[in-house]
Amino acid sequence: MVHPLVPSDRVEAAAVYGRDGQKIGTIERLMLEKKAGTVAYAVVKCGGFLKGNTHHYPLPWNSLNYNVAREAYEVDVTLEELQSGPSELDGKAFDWGDRSPIYQYPQYWTL
Amino acid sequence: MVHPLVPSDRVEAAAVYGRDGQKIGTIERLMLEKKAGTVAYAVVKCGGFLKGNTHHYPLPWNSLNYNVAREAYEVDVTLEELQSGPSELDGKAFDWGDRSPIYQYPQYWTL
Repeated sequence: MVHPLVPSDRVEAAAVYGRDGQKIGTIERLMLEKKAGTVAYAVVKCGGFLKGNTHHYPLPWNSLNYNVAREAYEVDVTLEELQSGPSELDGKAFDWGDRSPIYQYPQYWTL
Repeated sequence: MVHPLVPSDRVEAAAVYGRDGQKIGTIERLMLEKKAGTVAYAVVKCGGFLKGNTHHYPLPWNSLNYNVAREAYEVDVTLEELQSGPSELDGKAFDWGDRSPIYQYPQYWTL
């Protein structure tokens, strides 16, 4: 039987692969609607190896398809497409103490 | 302006206080409905200091009230009440590879 629930700390740190089979990044955290307790979107962390710049992209929950064999999420988008979108929260360090710099377009693409 | 979203990794590790003001434990993880992306319940970790036994209790999302000043969640229940309920998943180590030992009564009390 497939379990209907998944623990948040299993989702976090899971890899995300794009339509082209390339790895986009890993899920860093989930943004939750406080009242409803619903995942608004996942924040995917990309890069940060060479330039020290880590980029963060929002991906709607329903865009994430878990591939059991791969043990990773797959999305119908590529890193290039994400990078071309307005939703990037540049390489600044995340400061959750300041909640104002939220993604302006958390759902600029949907599936 | 109060932000309508909260990051999952801020929720995790937050302390939870009971109706009597005593600390019940800390949020260990959230259990999410895979399809809907809704938090089914939070898993609160308690104890584990003296006996080495950590207990886990499910608390429905809507039972958790965040106290900004306290920077912690408050619930209208006490640790004793949780312990008297059937939802305890004893002191066994969590093995998320085996998803079968799920709480039998994840919502045996609701607010």
